[in-house]
Amino acid sequence: MILYYSPGACSMADHIALNEAGLAHDLVKVDLRAKQTAGGDDFWQINPKGYVPALALDSGELLTENVAIMTWIASQAPGVAAKGELAQIRTIETLTYISTELHKQFGVLFQGGTDEAKATARERITKRLSLLAPRVQDGYLFGPEFTVADAYLFTVLSWCKKVGVDLADPFPAYYDRMAARDAVKRSLQEEGLA
Amino acid sequence: MILYYSPGACSMADHIALNEAGLAHDLVKVDLRAKQTAGGDDFWQINPKGYVPALALDSGELLTENVAIMTWIASQAPGVAAKGELAQIRTIETLTYISTELHKQFGVLFQGGTDEAKATARERITKRLSLLAPRVQDGYLFGPEFTVADAYLFTVLSWCKKVGVDLADPFPAYYDRMAARDAVKRSLQEEGLA
Repeated sequence: MILYYSPGACSMADHIALNEAGLAHDLVKVDLRAKQTAGGDDFWQINPKGYVPALALDSGELLTENVAIMTWIASQAPGVAAKGELAQIRTIETLTYISTELHKQFGVLFQGGTDEAKATARERITKRLSLLAPRVQDGYLFGPEFTVADAYLFTVLSWCKKVGVDLADPFPAYYDRMAARDAVKRSLQEEGLA
Repeated sequence: MILYYSPGACSMADHIALNEAGLAHDLVKVDLRAKQTAGGDDFWQINPKGYVPALALDSGELLTENVAIMTWIASQAPGVAAKGELAQIRTIETLTYISTELHKQFGVLFQGGTDEAKATARERITKRLSLLAPRVQDGYLFGPEFTVADAYLFTVLSWCKKVGVDLADPFPAYYDRMAARDAVKRSLQEEGLA
């Protein structure tokens, strides 16, 4: 399969999840401004949505949307899936929260917004992260083991560092715990971010 | 189970899905400004996120996030789930697209934004809806039968009507097709919107 990615973008979550899961994949870098792959292909032709992540399965089907791709990865690799009753739904719930309540706030911080809009976004991110804080106090979002949801949270925390959103406890320790994982280090290296 | 809702909000999607699925449920209306239920309970105590939808299962567990609740409803009622290989992942993909690319654009339209921000949001909604247009040309998002994803799209289209986003073909006919369904009519009535 092929993961279409842009370095450090939300596709990094899928990249980390694939590496953690041990699922073989090729990487194709996408220039999101030019909408062109590193090989010179028109990205609009590959993904009519024009954004990453996009995961081309070996069947030829293209999966899009982070929440869906991460859920699919977890379905293929029990080792990176949450365990227990309602585990899949709770994973989707957490992925959706990260996507709609956290990720979506970074638009004005990355792409330019008024100082007021940026301040509002920073406040919201801090407040919304605080709801997840108790869950990562000692380990990962779903307990002592990594699951795909952590790959997405780690990606969002890396953006906090980039745009200057201060991380309150326990997030700095959680970030370091994630950054120390082999699959995370390898993913950052493969994206040229190490 | 209990669905916590606010009339016409995104919880309407879950409400319609529950009625279409024939899953028995009680409704509790929430005043989202006061963060109080119609019975006078503090909604923060029920859902620490403070927003709807929230679905209290008979087990006592509370599910939040539209994408997760809708996926759960589909898992309980095959009649409102998409069919075929990858159907669940494709449903999550579509629900996430509606949530992150469409729903999230309505913030500035509902809660006040500059004229420029509103115009940008309108353009984005129109453009992003166009990607779904071929899928609802003749029936519903996943073919000739209703699935939970349609309940969410219908809800977003109802907001388009409210805030004056013109619907291009085939959405007016699709909206009418949805509005004519018994479970949709019943849901609107139950929310006091008929």
